[in-house]
Amino acid sequence: MTQLHPETQAAELESVLESDLAAVDARLGRYFADRISAASAFDPSYRRLWEGARDAADGGKRIRPRFVLTAFHGLGGTGTEAARTAAVAYELLHTAFLLHDDVIDGDTVRRGRPNVAGAFAAEAVARGAGPARGRRWGEAGAILAGDLLLHAAASVLARAETDDRTRDRLLDILDHGVFVTAAGELADVALAEHLGPETPTLEDVLAMTEHKTAAYSVSGPLMTGALLAGGGEDVLTTLAEYGRLVGIAFQLGDDLLGVFGSEDITGKSIVSDLRQGKETSLIAYARGTARWEELAPSLGRGDLALHEAGRLADVLDECGARRFVERLLAQHVDAAVALLDTPSIPPALAGPLTAVARSCIGRIA
Amino acid sequence: MTQLHPETQAAELESVLESDLAAVDARLGRYFADRISAASAFDPSYRRLWEGARDAADGGKRIRPRFVLTAFHGLGGTGTEAARTAAVAYELLHTAFLLHDDVIDGDTVRRGRPNVAGAFAAEAVARGAGPARGRRWGEAGAILAGDLLLHAAASVLARAETDDRTRDRLLDILDHGVFVTAAGELADVALAEHLGPETPTLEDVLAMTEHKTAAYSVSGPLMTGALLAGGGEDVLTTLAEYGRLVGIAFQLGDDLLGVFGSEDITGKSIVSDLRQGKETSLIAYARGTARWEELAPSLGRGDLALHEAGRLADVLDECGARRFVERLLAQHVDAAVALLDTPSIPPALAGPLTAVARSCIGRIA
Repeated sequence: MTQLHPETQAAELESVLESDLAAVDARLGRYFADRISAASAFDPSYRRLWEGARDAADGGKRIRPRFVLTAFHGLGGTGTEAARTAAVAYELLHTAFLLHDDVIDGDTVRRGRPNVAGAFAAEAVARGAGPARGRRWGEAGAILAGDLLLHAAASVLARAETDDRTRDRLLDILDHGVFVTAAGELADVALAEHLGPETPTLEDVLAMTEHKTAAYSVSGPLMTGALLAGGGEDVLTTLAEYGRLVGIAFQLGDDLLGVFGSEDITGKSIVSDLRQGKETSLIAYARGTARWEELAPSLGRGDLALHEAGRLADVLDECGARRFVERLLAQHVDAAVALLDTPSIPPALAGPLTAVARSCIGRIA
Repeated sequence: MTQLHPETQAAELESVLESDLAAVDARLGRYFADRISAASAFDPSYRRLWEGARDAADGGKRIRPRFVLTAFHGLGGTGTEAARTAAVAYELLHTAFLLHDDVIDGDTVRRGRPNVAGAFAAEAVARGAGPARGRRWGEAGAILAGDLLLHAAASVLARAETDDRTRDRLLDILDHGVFVTAAGELADVALAEHLGPETPTLEDVLAMTEHKTAAYSVSGPLMTGALLAGGGEDVLTTLAEYGRLVGIAFQLGDDLLGVFGSEDITGKSIVSDLRQGKETSLIAYARGTARWEELAPSLGRGDLALHEAGRLADVLDECGARRFVERLLAQHVDAAVALLDTPSIPPALAGPLTAVARSCIGRIA
């Protein structure tokens, strides 16, 4: 392989990724088109269920496919079809988790439009059902849509063109991702419903984050791409740990954005985390400071006004929570980047992964 | 293979099945023990979730494993391990569907004890949560437990020791089972919530039954066992159709038991179908008779007394619904048995499948 200038290399990788991601999108499109067509043989609502599942998979940032394919190409993988198949599987898994996460949280809107539960509930109400009946119908639809895509993820991955040993390993990684994500999701609900630890610590919040997001969003996809490129155990171990750190860093960035972000830039409300009383790293830190009494009564108040949220943000800044989380984020990013400085990770992989890790910092600007 | 007397053959098959099913139970036991042990590294509630999942899989009649293994041995299959693996996969799938079915129906009890949702809700309430918070916690637990087992079904099946072509075919059969079951489950909810057809016909009810139960409980397992035994397309097609007919026959038997059964013998309440206003074959038939006005106001009344239910049962008998469904059941059984009279289905398979089909009749006695 010719040694390329790092910038040329990065541009080449990006162009390969773009064509891969277009192929992944095309495959997802065909997958849903086939299912929507097959669903037409059943009750009309089943077709609408599949259309809703397709819409749920639409418009995502394809973060997991990108990780699969970055690891794959960064390690010089050949036989792109299997990597694309794995990328499709992880996107289906992600969509399934979104659908069930929304049911668990009682959310009926995702990415600014009604999700499956919301659309089904609205349809029932339009047909004369009361809100309770609408909610049951919406939840049933969203549970089933998630089930279908969750099943699809494993079934699609198992068909990747590879040898038996690699397939078993791919399934091991997926199994682990699903197992750990469910643990994190349960811990998240426990924190939200105050059914977890009496006084959640920062460690509790970070562990929940790591389990809920890092495993299936970063570590699993990276390990999958690496495995398909023929990467050894040392590479996989490094990528698992990198994924853990970057997954946490990303969530810490989200926690900061959720309170200090500019809604104009991020499109994310800076009131909702506080209104929901979400157990974030900022809150866990603030709980141990002298300013906690000023925050506690307002957190989780559904009617919190924008100016009140601004006041809470000031307190979270003044008590040191913001600085603490920013520093913690930077530490996670530094640790992740440092891991890549090892002979088993070639520059072609270390380069893009360093860029991804660094992008977790300063997302507010 | 020596020609054995049919009775000797049946006794031999039963003994082979017993040892297979013991092996399937042992594998399921190991599967859950491993996961419970791994879950202990997380929040204590995650361990309880897996214990609940294990309990949900416990005490079933292993109908699906039995179908996989009956088809496998009846066709002279060798390499029992793959068939046992497939049997485990279908039992995990069944348990996943039970867990999610209970969430969708809002049920908190299964087989006479609290299910995952019920146990989690009770635990939350014991810790001071109100009923709404308890319900949310219970539903989250049951959704996640079902997700874990649904994923496991595909992942376990994909590891069956077989060639790539057969594995793809095994996954096709499982995909189809999941796809059709979700359609049936959705149709079931639509009927229960009066969001399906304006006036459900018998055809609507039978189609729902076929989709919700026959595909993954009978046809899929039989085709899976046959495929692993090397059965050809003609065998698989026959078994798919046999499964469809027997699945419907079994549900028709359930409909009869639900109203005319003896609670002492069946352990099944003879009020609950009527109290729930369940859309069964009996009801769909009765809707077209002159006695419908006597039934309609009482169906779905949650406070229906036993003597009132008895009166409704009398009307369902007198209006001809009982006789009609009994005849329909017998027709399905006869058609299923007739299918087996083909050279591609050897006596060693036709024998036990005839017995299974016939057992759908007269379950009331």
